[in-house]
This record gives sequence, C-alpha cells and structure tokens, in this order.
Amino acid sequence: MPRINKDRSVKSGLPPGTLIHIGERSDREIRVTIAEYTEKTYEEKAISSLKESFYYMEPKALTWIDVEGLHEVELIQKFGDTQGLHPLVLEDIVNTNQRPKLEDYGDYLYIVLKMLRDRGEPGVGMEQISLILGPHFVITFQEGLRGDLFGPVRERLRNGKGRLRSMGADYLVYTLIDMIVDSYFTSLERLGDDISELEDEVVREPGPETTRKIHQMKRDMIQLRRVAWPLREVLSALERRESTLVSAPVAIYLRDVYDHTVQVIDAVEAYRDIVSGLLDIYLSSISNRMNETIKFLTVIGTIFIPLTFISGVYGMNFQFMPELQWRWGYFLVVGFMFFVAVGMLVYFRRKRWL
Amino acid sequence: MPRINKDRSVKSGLPPGTLIHIGERSDREIRVTIAEYTEKTYEEKAISSLKESFYYMEPKALTWIDVEGLHEVELIQKFGDTQGLHPLVLEDIVNTNQRPKLEDYGDYLYIVLKMLRDRGEPGVGMEQISLILGPHFVITFQEGLRGDLFGPVRERLRNGKGRLRSMGADYLVYTLIDMIVDSYFTSLERLGDDISELEDEVVREPGPETTRKIHQMKRDMIQLRRVAWPLREVLSALERRESTLVSAPVAIYLRDVYDHTVQVIDAVEAYRDIVSGLLDIYLSSISNRMNETIKFLTVIGTIFIPLTFISGVYGMNFQFMPELQWRWGYFLVVGFMFFVAVGMLVYFRRKRWL
Amino acid sequence: MPRINKDRSVKSGLPPGTLIHIGERSDREIRVTIAEYTEKTYEEKAISSLKESFYYMEPKALTWIDVEGLHEVELIQKFGDTQGLHPLVLEDIVNTNQRPKLEDYGDYLYIVLKMLRDRGEPGVGMEQISLILGPHFVITFQEGLRGDLFGPVRERLRNGKGRLRSMGADYLVYTLIDMIVDSYFTSLERLGDDISELEDEVVREPGPETTRKIHQMKRDMIQLRRVAWPLREVLSALERRESTLVSAPVAIYLRDVYDHTVQVIDAVEAYRDIVSGLLDIYLSSISNRMNETIKFLTVIGTIFIPLTFISGVYGMNFQFMPELQWRWGYFLVVGFMFFVAVGMLVYFRRKRWL
Amino acid sequence: MPRINKDRSVKSGLPPGTLIHIGERSDREIRVTIAEYTEKTYEEKAISSLKESFYYMEPKALTWIDVEGLHEVELIQKFGDTQGLHPLVLEDIVNTNQRPKLEDYGDYLYIVLKMLRDRGEPGVGMEQISLILGPHFVITFQEGLRGDLFGPVRERLRNGKGRLRSMGADYLVYTLIDMIVDSYFTSLERLGDDISELEDEVVREPGPETTRKIHQMKRDMIQLRRVAWPLREVLSALERRESTLVSAPVAIYLRDVYDHTVQVIDAVEAYRDIVSGLLDIYLSSISNRMNETIKFLTVIGTIFIPLTFISGVYGMNFQFMPELQWRWGYFLVVGFMFFVAVGMLVYFRRKRWL
Amino acid sequence: MPRINKDRSVKSGLPPGTLIHIGERSDREIRVTIAEYTEKTYEEKAISSLKESFYYMEPKALTWIDVEGLHEVELIQKFGDTQGLHPLVLEDIVNTNQRPKLEDYGDYLYIVLKMLRDRGEPGVGMEQISLILGPHFVITFQEGLRGDLFGPVRERLRNGKGRLRSMGADYLVYTLIDMIVDSYFTSLERLGDDISELEDEVVREPGPETTRKIHQMKRDMIQLRRVAWPLREVLSALERRESTLVSAPVAIYLRDVYDHTVQVIDAVEAYRDIVSGLLDIYLSSISNRMNETIKFLTVIGTIFIPLTFISGVYGMNFQFMPELQWRWGYFLVVGFMFFVAVGMLVYFRRKRWL
Repeated sequence: MPRINKDRSVKSGLPPGTLIHIGERSDREIRVTIAEYTEKTYEEKAISSLKESFYYMEPKALTWIDVEGLHEVELIQKFGDTQGLHPLVLEDIVNTNQRPKLEDYGDYLYIVLKMLRDRGEPGVGMEQISLILGPHFVITFQEGLRGDLFGPVRERLRNGKGRLRSMGADYLVYTLIDMIVDSYFTSLERLGDDISELEDEVVREPGPETTRKIHQMKRDMIQLRRVAWPLREVLSALERRESTLVSAPVAIYLRDVYDHTVQVIDAVEAYRDIVSGLLDIYLSSISNRMNETIKFLTVIGTIFIPLTFISGVYGMNFQFMPELQWRWGYFLVVGFMFFVAVGMLVYFRRKRWL
Repeated sequence: MPRINKDRSVKSGLPPGTLIHIGERSDREIRVTIAEYTEKTYEEKAISSLKESFYYMEPKALTWIDVEGLHEVELIQKFGDTQGLHPLVLEDIVNTNQRPKLEDYGDYLYIVLKMLRDRGEPGVGMEQISLILGPHFVITFQEGLRGDLFGPVRERLRNGKGRLRSMGADYLVYTLIDMIVDSYFTSLERLGDDISELEDEVVREPGPETTRKIHQMKRDMIQLRRVAWPLREVLSALERRESTLVSAPVAIYLRDVYDHTVQVIDAVEAYRDIVSGLLDIYLSSISNRMNETIKFLTVIGTIFIPLTFISGVYGMNFQFMPELQWRWGYFLVVGFMFFVAVGMLVYFRRKRWL
Repeated sequence: MPRINKDRSVKSGLPPGTLIHIGERSDREIRVTIAEYTEKTYEEKAISSLKESFYYMEPKALTWIDVEGLHEVELIQKFGDTQGLHPLVLEDIVNTNQRPKLEDYGDYLYIVLKMLRDRGEPGVGMEQISLILGPHFVITFQEGLRGDLFGPVRERLRNGKGRLRSMGADYLVYTLIDMIVDSYFTSLERLGDDISELEDEVVREPGPETTRKIHQMKRDMIQLRRVAWPLREVLSALERRESTLVSAPVAIYLRDVYDHTVQVIDAVEAYRDIVSGLLDIYLSSISNRMNETIKFLTVIGTIFIPLTFISGVYGMNFQFMPELQWRWGYFLVVGFMFFVAVGMLVYFRRKRWL
Repeated sequence: MPRINKDRSVKSGLPPGTLIHIGERSDREIRVTIAEYTEKTYEEKAISSLKESFYYMEPKALTWIDVEGLHEVELIQKFGDTQGLHPLVLEDIVNTNQRPKLEDYGDYLYIVLKMLRDRGEPGVGMEQISLILGPHFVITFQEGLRGDLFGPVRERLRNGKGRLRSMGADYLVYTLIDMIVDSYFTSLERLGDDISELEDEVVREPGPETTRKIHQMKRDMIQLRRVAWPLREVLSALERRESTLVSAPVAIYLRDVYDHTVQVIDAVEAYRDIVSGLLDIYLSSISNRMNETIKFLTVIGTIFIPLTFISGVYGMNFQFMPELQWRWGYFLVVGFMFFVAVGMLVYFRRKRWL
Repeated sequence: MPRINKDRSVKSGLPPGTLIHIGERSDREIRVTIAEYTEKTYEEKAISSLKESFYYMEPKALTWIDVEGLHEVELIQKFGDTQGLHPLVLEDIVNTNQRPKLEDYGDYLYIVLKMLRDRGEPGVGMEQISLILGPHFVITFQEGLRGDLFGPVRERLRNGKGRLRSMGADYLVYTLIDMIVDSYFTSLERLGDDISELEDEVVREPGPETTRKIHQMKRDMIQLRRVAWPLREVLSALERRESTLVSAPVAIYLRDVYDHTVQVIDAVEAYRDIVSGLLDIYLSSISNRMNETIKFLTVIGTIFIPLTFISGVYGMNFQFMPELQWRWGYFLVVGFMFFVAVGMLVYFRRKRWL
C-alpha cells in the first residue's frame, strides 16, 4: 500500500501553523550548507545545526541555504521566523505528505517537489524537496534520508563553469528542478525494464506470483502518476512566468523542463496502458494453459471410458453369453477395443483436440 | 446501499421554503451555544432551546451561534426569520441530503459540508454541517447525533491562545472547515488500513466473503468521492475570495485547506484505482486455486483410468484367455500397472501438471 | 430497448415546421385549462377543445394555459399561430422525442422537460412537458397519458396561499419545474430500493434471472442519465438569467432547483457505479458457487476412483492370485479400501477442498 | 473492418491540390442538374456532363448546381477553377475519406457531410455530400452511387410550396442538411431494432454467432460516432452564425437541426452503452448455460460412481466373501444401491444442484 | 516494449545545453544538402560534412539546409552556434526522444515531428524530423537511418513545377509536414490490413499466438497515439498563425494538413476501439470452443457411466442372481443398455448438448 497520509491524523484538531514532522525520521543530524556566490566568488560553509545559521543572508551576493533533515521542528520554526516565512510554509515543509505544488507568497515562491530515489525495496521511493525562491536567495529543504541529493549542483557552483554562477536565483532553482526531473527518467527506465521482463514472464511462464507483480507494477504507476501530473502543473506555472521572480531567459529553460515532465507523463500513461493489458494477457494465457491441460486429460479419459465399458460387458456372469465360448472371442474383443481406441484418437486429432 | 435521498419524496409537491427535517432523528434536545468574543473578552452561554436565542447578536463583538439538532423545524424557522435568513437556506439546513456547497446571499455566505464520523458500523458515516458566515457573526448547525463536534475549537476560543480570537468571523469559519477536512484524513487512514488488510486477504486466503468486502469498499469510495469533489469546489470558491466576506490573510489559510482537499481527492482516487485492481486479482487468484485443485484431481483420475481398464480386461469371462493361465500372469499384470502409473506420474510431473 | 426516436422516420423528407405527432397516443380528448390570476383574483375555465381557447390572453392578469394531449395537431397548429409561436416550437411540442432543452425566442422561452411517471411496467416511464414562458403568460403542454400532472400546483393557485399568486410568470414556471424535478427523487428512491434488493439477491441467491435484472437496471440508468444531464443544463441556463424573462428573486429559487438536479445526477452516477460493480460480483459469486459444486463432486469422484480400481484388480480372473485364497483376504481388502478412503478424506479436508 | 482511408496512400508525396478520386467508383455518367429560381420562377436543366455547365451562374436568381458522380476529376477541376473554388476544396470533394467539416473561405462556405444509405449489406453505408454555400448560389456534389439523393428537395422547389423558394441560399443548404440528418434517424431506428433482436437472442438462445454480431454492432456504432460528433460541430458552427452567409432567421432553423444531431449522438451513446453491456450478458449467459450442463452431467456421474464401486466390490473373486453366499445378498445389495442413489439425489436436490 | 527514453539517463546531472546524441546511431556520414532558390533559379550543393556549411545563408534567396545524421554532436553544436540557434534547440535536435512539438523562439520556429517508417520489423518505426523555420531559411534535421526522406520534395523544387518555388519558407515547411503526415496514412492502411487479418484469425482459428498479436497491436496503437495527438497540437498552433512567420495563404494549406491529422487520430481511435473489442471476442471465442469440447466429452462420458454400472451389476459374483440363469438374460441386458444409451442420446440432443 502506498503510505498516503499515514500519521497525518496526529494533526487533527491542532491550530494551523503548528509544526509537526510527518514522515520517515532520519537518524542523522540536521545539516545546513550555506553558499554565497557572485560570478567571481564562491564561499561555502557547512554547519551541523540550524542555530548558527540565523546571522546569514547578506544582500551583496546570491545566497543558497540548504537544509538536510526535517525532524527538529523547533529549529526550523525559529529559522523560518527569522527569514520571514509564512507559518503555513513551515508547516508544509516538515509534512512530507505534500503533493508537488507552487505557492506564490509575493516576496518568494514556495515550491514542493518529489525526487525519486533509487529503489532498493519494491515501490517507488520518494524524497520531498522544498524550494523557496526569493529575489536574492534560494532556500532548500531535503528530507536527508539518503544524504545530500544536490551534490552535483554544488560541485558545478564550486567549479564556476557554465552559466550557473553568472545568472540569478531563478536559474539556480531551474538547475535543481532539472536535476529532480531527471530522476524521473532514471525511474522510468527501470520501470520500462521491469515491464519488459514482466511481459516475457506473462507470455513464457506465467505463475501465481505474476499477478502480484502486475498489481505491484500498477501501484507503482499510480504513485508515479500522482506526483507526475502536479509536477507538470508546477512547471507550467513557472514557465508562464506568473511571478516576477522568474526572468524571461530562465523561462525558456523552464519550458524545456516542462517538456520533460510532459514526456514523463506520456511515458507513464503509455506504461499504464501496457500494464493494464498485461493482466488480460496473463489471464488468457493462464486459462489457455489450464484448458489445454484439462482438455488433454479429458480426452484421455474419454478414450478409456468405452473400452472399460466393453470389458465390463464381458465381465458379466450370465450363463448364456455365446461370445465367451468363442475360440477367438478374447482376441476379437481386444482387437475391437484397439480399433475403437485408434478410431477415437484419429477423430480427436482431426478435431484438433489432441 | 448508500441512503441517497431516502425519504426525500415526502417533500414532493410542497411549496418551496417548506421546512421538513430529512435525516436521522437525534433523540436529544436541541442545544444552542452562543459565544460572543473580542480579542480580550469571551462570553459563552448554553441554552437548551432555540426560543431564548432570539435576543442575541449585538454588533459590538463577534458572535458564534451553534445549533445542535435539526428536528424541531418550527424553532429553526422562527430563528431563521429573526436572523433574516432566506427560506431556501432554512430548507436546506434541515434537509441532510445536501451535497457540500457554497451559496452567496450577498449579506452572508451559506456553506454546507459533511463531517466524517467515526465508523462503528460499516460504511462511511457522515454528519451534515451548515455554516453561515456574516460580517460579524457565524451561525453553525450540527445534526447533533454524536454530541458536539466543535468542542476543540470552542476550547481554543476559551483559552484565547493563537490567532483565533484576534481575527474575524472568516477565520473562525476557516478553523471549523479545517477541522472538518481533518476528519477526512482520519477516515482515509482507516480506509488505507482496511485496504492493506484486504490486499493481504486477497493474496493469502481469498474466500467468498472477500467479494462482499471489496464491493463494500468500492461503495465507501463512491460515497467519499461524492462529498470530496464538491468540498474541493467549495474551498476553491472561498480561496478565490469571490465574496468580500473573506479577507486576504484568511484566503491564504483557505488555500492551505484547499490543498488538503486536493490531497484527499488524490488519495481517494488512488485508493479507488487500487481497489478496482483488487477484484481482478481476487478473481484471478480464486480461479488459479480452483484450477490447481481441479487439475490435481483430474490428474489423479487420469492415472487410474487406464489401470482400471486393464483390470477390467482381465476380469472378462472368456473361456480362452491365455494370460489367465500363466503362472506369473497376475504379477506381470500388476507390475505392468505399476509401470504405467509411474510412467504417467513422471510424464505429468515433467509437464508441470503435478 | 429504450424506444429512442421510434417512428421518427415518418418525418424524413418533410419540410420543416410540418406538425406530426410522435409518441404514445392518448385516447382521451384534448383538455385545455385556462387560469387567469392576480394577487387577489383567480379565474379558471376548463374547456374540452382548443377551438374555444383562441379568444383569451388579456394583458391585465397573468394567464396560464395548460393543454393536455398532443394528438390533434391541426388544433395545436392553429393555437400556436394565434399565439405567435414559431413553427419549430410547435413541431417540437408534438414530437415527444425531445431531449430536455431551453430555447430563447426573444419574446418567450421554450422549455422542454421530462416528467418521470410512476412505473407500473419495467423501465423508466416518462412524459414530455413543454413550457412556454412569456412576460405575462405561461403555456404548458402535457402528453395527457395519465391525467393532469399539474393538479397540486393548480390547487395552490386556487387557495392563494404562499407566494405563488403574488409573483410573476417566471415563478409559476419555477413551481412547475420544481414539481417535475421532485418526480426524479421519487424515481430515484424506487431505484435505490430496487438496487438494494438486487444487491441482496446477488450475494444470497444469484440466479440466471439476475443478469437480466442487472441489464434492465443499467438501461434504466442510461435513460435516467439521458434526461438528467440536459435537465441540469436547462436549469443552469435559467438560473444564470440569460433571459430577461427571469427575475433576480426567482433566480435564487431556480438555483435551488439547479442544486436538486445536481443531486439527482450525483445519485444517478453513484447508482451507476454500484450497478456496474454488481455484475462483477454476480459473475464472481456465480462462478464461486459453480466451482464449489464442481470441486465437491470432483473430490467425491476422486475418492472412489482408486477404490474402484482395487476392486477391479481382485475381480480379475487369473488362476494364480494368492490373495484370493487367503481366509481374510476379502476383509483385508475392504479394510484397506476404507483406510484409503479415510486417508484421502483427511488429505482433502486439510487442503480445504472439502 | 471500416475501410478508413483505403487507397489514401496513392496521394503520398503528391503536391497539394492534386485531384485524385478516392472512393467507390460509380459506373454511371456524371450528371449535373442546374436549377435557377426566384420566388416566382423555377428553371431546371439536367446535363449529362460538366462541360456544358460553365456558362451558368447569372446573378439575377438563386442558382443550385448539383453534381452527381466524382470520378471525372479533370472536369471537376475545370468546373472548380471556373467557379473560383480553392484547389484544396476540389481535392477534398473528390476524396471521400473526409470527416464532416465546415470551412470558411470568406466568399463561400465549404461543408462536407455524410449521408447514411440504406443498408443492404452489413455495416453502416455512407455517401459523402459536399455543399458549397455562396451568397447567391449553392453547389452540391454527390458520390452518385445510388442515384439522386436530393430528389424530394428538388420536387419541393418545383412545386414552389412552403418557404423554400422565397428564402435565400442558406435556407436551401439548411433544407439539404435537414434531409441528411433525417437519414441518421432512419439508420438509428434500424439499429435500435437490430439491438432489440440481439438482446432477445442473447437472453434466449446465445450461440457462437452472437459474439460476431455484437462485434459487428460495436463497429457500426464506432463508425456512426465518427460521423455524428463532427456533424454536431458543423451544425454548431453554422447555428452560431460565424459566417455572414447564414442569416438570422435561418440560424433558428439550423439550431433545430443542431438539436437533432444532439439527439442522434445521444441515441448513439445510449446504444453504445447497451451494446457494451450485451457482451457481458452474453458471456455470463453462455457460461451459465455451460456450467448448468456440466454441473448436471457431473451430478449424474457422481451418483453412479459409488454404485459402480459397490458392484465392483461384489465382483471380486475372493473365495471367502460371506455375502456372496447369502440367499438375499444380491437383492440386499441392489436395494442398498437404490437407497444410496435416492439419498444422493435428495441431497443434491436440496443443495439445488439438480 | 516501446523504447521510451532508453539511454536518457546518461544526461542526468549534466548542465542544460549539453549536446548528447540519444537514439539509434546511423553508420553513415553526416550529409548536408543546401538548396538556394528563387522563383526562377535553383542551386543545390551536397556536402559530406557540416564543416563546409558555415559560409552559406545569403539573404538574396530562400535557403534550405538539410542535415542527415545526428551523431556528430560537436559539428551540430558549431553549426547551431553559427546560425544563432538556442542551445536548448540543439539539445533537442540530437535527442530523438522528443514528442512532436512547436516552439516559438521569436526569430524562428522550432518544430519536431515523427515520420513513420516502413515497418520491416514489428512495431511502429519512427524517425525524428526537426524543422527550423526562419523568415528566409528552413533548416531540417533527419536521423538519416534510412537515407534521405525528403527526396520527392527536393525533386519538385528542382523541376520548379507547382507553387513550391514561388512561395515563401513557410510553404516549404508546409510541404515537408504534408509529406510527413502522409506517412501516417500509409502506416494506418497497413495497420488496418493487419487488424482485418487479426479479426479473421480471432473468429476462424484463434490460437495461443493470437493474444500476443493483439497485445502487439495494442502497443502499436499506444505508440501511434503518442505521436498523433501532439502532432495535431503542432498543426493547430501553426494553422492559427500564432507566429508571424506563417502567412495567411499558407495557413489555409496548414488547415488542410490539420484536417488530415484529425483524420489520423480519428482512425487511430476507431482502430483502438476495435482492437480492444478483439480481445473480448478472442476470449469468448476460445472459451466457447473449449467449452464445446469439454461438454462433448462429458456427454460421451455420461452416456457410458450408467452402462458400465449395469455391466458391473451383472459382474457381481452372488450365488443367487436369478437373471444370470435366464436364457435371454444377456441379450435382454445388452438390449436394455442399448435402450438406455439411445434414450440418453435423444435427451441430450433435445437439450442441445450434442
């Protein structure tokens, strides 16, 4: 079962803006990485707690604050209050049951996305990413369950290669979203491989386990759809530049990512159609095999039934049964049985029952 | 069966605005709780009948009148007339067959919602809540079947903690709606648990009872959808601030509740897809087991059929059957039978029929 | 089969505006009831033919002309020409194959609706009602198959109680539509009861007849949907006051009826989902029972097959079969058979095949 | 199979505006009928080839040129060039694979419709009709496979009865479209009758042929939908008077035809739902009968199995079998068999297996 | 399996605008064909590499640069930079996983389409075509897997016949798109033929292979839909002339192609409905045959069961069985058996079980 809204009910009846961490609990410390950069300079500071982070955010450079781990809600509360974030934003950040969404709070945009994780266990693993895009800063929140997901982007920032450092906060957000959407393609490829395997299994050796696998595949698809469609909405809104925080040149890049999300949805829907079809084929395949077996056995049975009857007739104990006295009676009857059996075999073969 | 519009036909042919209570009849007295509050003060008065309530509603403070129990229609009529409510509003309040909806009567908004109750019996239990939002007052109507549902909110008002007392009537309505939407998450969690159990049952030990459970689950889903979708519409309209009775800061909170309703619908649709799939798996699971059984039995039968035939042959009473005179005839034949049986067993095992 | 457009082809190739009565033919005379009323006065005249009606329609009061029976097309033609109705309106009035619709002819609105009749025979019985709303008059046409359907409204007009006589022609039309929509709730309740019964039947004693009933139920649902959805469109257009013939206060009442139609559609769709599910349960229920039976019989057969084989072995006529000479041979073999039978019973019971 | 786009590929790679006749080839000559009329006068000239037609189209009267047969593309090319028709229009006229559509070329409207033919063979027969509506002229193209389809309209023009001659070119087009839409009702009635028959067959005597018939019915429905939906779009566009070539009074008539197309679609969709349901009933009906048969046979078999076993026991050749010596042994055993058989019959009947 | 996004993950984490060729790798050299033409003149130059092409594009004539083969990404990068193409356009050109789309970059339009290839292997083969439409130039990119696809258009340009040379760049793009859309009709015809064959096979001789074929057909349909729907969007946008690069006369031609895409989608959807129906018929057909077989065999078995029982009775070894001593006992019993067999045959035939 997709664990939708598990534990959510603990919030029932609490006033809005109450921060409660809902989700898997990371056993690591909260880690905060603060990067300040201009086209020329790059400074990075990693601190192990949110407490120290309250002095940052100077206006001279672009600042990217990345928070890993969501379970120390009091610190996040304090941090959010310092940065002037709306209580509802903080509430949503620590609740990992969010659908992907974009909210415009005027001064900043609040974006929630789901990154697909490498799947060790069955099901589609997801990690919630919150992005806050302000005019001169970007704040990101990761669940921090599998370590830092933004490593490659940070690396590119450090190197200073490409456009990344010379462009605004919106371009940084674009880069992060692009990375997240790329994780969908990786998942889709794995799904595609799994479906191919399943197709082979269904046609070659369908077993009782196959149904369970198809059901699991369907559930994965349902989960993927649930995050893919709202993802598209988020990117569509960004690309249409409904907020002034997104500049025109970056909107072109966002249109590209939007296209990718359309491709993702397209693939998910195609896979879904194929998987639905699989169950039908599985059922028809199973029932075909079953029927072939039962038909074969029934045919075998049917051939012996008249033979057994004949032998029964000559097993009767009547005193006057002329055939019993015949010299070649036995051989005639056995010959007749043979003839009947062969005749039935030929008949059944002609009817393609054998 | 969902009891849709049961008893509704008693209204057939009556002029509009005729108040008739449609719904389960509470056996308690109608209870009215009137709360008047400002940021500093809070006064509450509980009266056991609507008769006394007609003197209230002074403009100096925010007034919240909560009515529990809908069956004394004459009193509700009188009360409604005093407060200047439209006859159709009163008609809808006492008819618990309403879909969630929002109606703008200019001076006030009339909102109907369904609160999900804890489910003792099967099915999704619902209680209809009517909310009237005026500039300085809120009037709420509960069915009153399971006691006061708004206790926690009243408690928060009394304490004076949080934003509740310092904000307007729209914020009170938001708080009540938030509570109602939270009840959906509780129901969804229970549903999710039930579905998980059902999935286990379908795969491990499907029985004839399972179909009935799946059908019941489907019906619960249909009922949940019927209230969840219009709920979203209501919140969408509120959030878009189509009425001036909703202020901009509260609209942000309403957007948050709107998001919750989208999550609810999302979960309901996902559950629905999963439950639909369950029936397919159940059927394939059942027919798999059935077929395995019948195949096994048929194979057993098929092994004995030729053996029985052989014994029949040597049970014939022909006078001249040379084998019958052979010294080792009996043992040869039994040996041959054994050989045939073993051969068939090997053959069937190879074909994976056993 | 729903008799959709039966006999419609007789019109093929005729010029537009040719009046041809299509529908069930009432065997009664056409009856015309003319009511003229103001807030204070009420005059009613019932005439048995349309011929006399051509002198009416004085502007000093509200006039309601109600025509029962549609088969005398020449009279309706003449009447329509006198009142200045468009030929296409007249053509539609006498053709009972209309979908519910609203047409604005500037001076008047032409509304077609379907009233659901009490169902003696299977299927959803319908009667077509045409309403013409002018500034100071209302003209209604009933099929007249089951007598006057507007009796209760006429009674209310006579009594002069309620708002009916003090308001305009649009309110009269609203009252009539309200009555018609109420007939849908009555039908829905009956349908709901039938579905409940069917659900019981499907689970408790599904028979071959059940399929037919489910099919019939589905067809009723299809027919109900076909009239319910356009009905909603009609009321939506009226409520939005696209025509000046509808006044603002009446629009509030029409919004209420619009809500009712939404409830009707809601219920129809929910019932439809449930009925679709019923066939699945029926099939699974039937095949479950079938399979249980066949499994039971197969198990019985399988127990006797080896026993019969054993008896066959000792029925062979070999001269040298040592067991046959044993003193207790017979009893040993019978005991062995008993042992085999019990062993198989225990095995099958353990496998839950019995 | 619906012959969709058969032979269409011959056009692949040719420049646009290349006229190639695609469709069934009529073996008749192309026939052209030219009618010029005013309210008072009517002149008609039938010519057997397009060559002579190039002198016509005088502005003093309304001209209707009707072309029957599309296979002489060079003549149609020449004719079209003379009349100033766009090359793409000519290309579409001779290609009978068009969907119904409306194209506004400023000076004239180009309308393609499908007329349903009387169905001798299975499937829904269609003939493509092209209509060109100019300010003072109407040009129509028929495939000419079954003779002149517009006979009744021409007859009405000759008689001069009704509105036809006193109104403009748009009214003539309306009349022709009305006739075409009427052909859908005729087809629908036939389909309705066929479905009724099929329903009876499915319930009373389902055979292997029935599946094929249901499939054919489904395909007919698919084809009908494919022409009915775009037909509605065409009429919707006409009725909304998007072109100035349609006058307001005629738009009212077109709204009426639009209503008819909605009725057609409505009926097609209802039929489609019913036909989909039919396959389910057929399958359940077939499997019910099958199961009843097999259950009956299995019950019969099961009754004899223990009896045969008993007779086998007393067919054993043990020397010491006391019952064999009993005086009434035989009769006792036969009586016991009878008792067992009757007991099983009673048991099976109670279980409703017989 | 449709190979959706295979190899796409290699791009994961790379900065945007990084050119990576994704798709089948052609083993030919990249070929560039440059055509410059006015109404009077036509010059063509074929070069084997992109390196030489950087000097072209003079403004005096229309220039069409056609690039075949996408695997030398550095050259395409360089070429794109020279022509001023956006990095994202270049990225999309070399990634053959694109959905058909249209992007407006102000100075030029970027269009991606899929051309359907002749299908040797199973599945719908596709080749990605990128078109860039500027005011005075057209640049096209083919995958180059099967040689030059634009031969016929180039030929028409050389000849100078038709409108092609006298019109603008938009008309050239129209001509190319028209050619691409024509390739869909060819594919559809082949699909139509395959479906017809499959329908015959399903009804006449359904085998286990048939399911696989239906599944394959469904997948082809899914793939076709995936490219057909966005193709329609592209043409709809072009035809609505959202860009000034498309002139009004050419828009009329584009509307024609748009119509073709609607026909394609229409046909695909119809085929899809038919193919879905096929599986149902296949299953019912298979189970019909199966059941007929098993019924036949069961009936045969059932006839012999009582006969065998009778012979068993008279095979019992009781000392006192009067019938055994009767002179005609044997013949009477055999006659009785015959009578029973014939009676059962008649009974089964009457019940239509044989």
